[in-house]
Amino acid sequence: MQISHIEHIGIAVKSLKDAIPYYENMLGLKCYSIEEVADQKVKTAFFMVGQTKIELLEPTSEESTIAAFIEKRGEGIHHIAFCVDNAADALTELGEKGIRLIDKCPRKGAEGLNIGFLHPKSTGGVLTEICEKPECK
Amino acid sequence: MQISHIEHIGIAVKSLKDAIPYYENMLGLKCYSIEEVADQKVKTAFFMVGQTKIELLEPTSEESTIAAFIEKRGEGIHHIAFCVDNAADALTELGEKGIRLIDKCPRKGAEGLNIGFLHPKSTGGVLTEICEKPECK
Repeated sequence: MQISHIEHIGIAVKSLKDAIPYYENMLGLKCYSIEEVADQKVKTAFFMVGQTKIELLEPTSEESTIAAFIEKRGEGIHHIAFCVDNAADALTELGEKGIRLIDKCPRKGAEGLNIGFLHPKSTGGVLTEICEKPECK
Repeated sequence: MQISHIEHIGIAVKSLKDAIPYYENMLGLKCYSIEEVADQKVKTAFFMVGQTKIELLEPTSEESTIAAFIEKRGEGIHHIAFCVDNAADALTELGEKGIRLIDKCPRKGAEGLNIGFLHPKSTGGVLTEICEKPECK
């Protein structure tokens, strides 16, 4: 498995409407996309920072894992996502090496990426996402 | 203020010795430097991932803010650091815009960078570092 770069940093927020002005007006970044990911019960907002994105995550349901995260820990950094050339192969390799997988096979995430999560119990407390951009294959 | 990229992601760990093998053997990254930052009561380990570093932070004292973070929330992602061309100007601008500053003026961080922190109360719960590489000026 070869990681090329950090694809994005996921940040849990209560409200995109309240959070976006900080990133735009204070940090000078530009929100280029807002997208709902029904599967994950979140609405996302994206900012490009060099080769890495910031992905703000607003829960759209109380059953969203993002709602549970905010309830337990407050708003803040939720996960880190690494870009690989083949997510299925990476998840298989990590599983064989003993990493506990939340997703054994990739599923579709925001922006059409094939993604899979590693369990923070196996990664030193860091919720970790493996991402593959289909156009990179 | 212009952010060029994410300089690093800081991750709190109890022990570098226990954490480094995950990054090297599972993720295939290479630890290129270990450095003690006495001022911050931490020992750091760095990995390059594209244009962004992962900075593992092990507390060297129970009085370290990293020790307090781990005590309260467990190991995990601690902060995000943005690279700017002038940290002093960026901190002044952010302070004038109403952001609560932990550091009003830059101080020296790991790798000789001029750094300053923004308070998570002003940044949606994200402990945020502003970094300037002296050689970029």
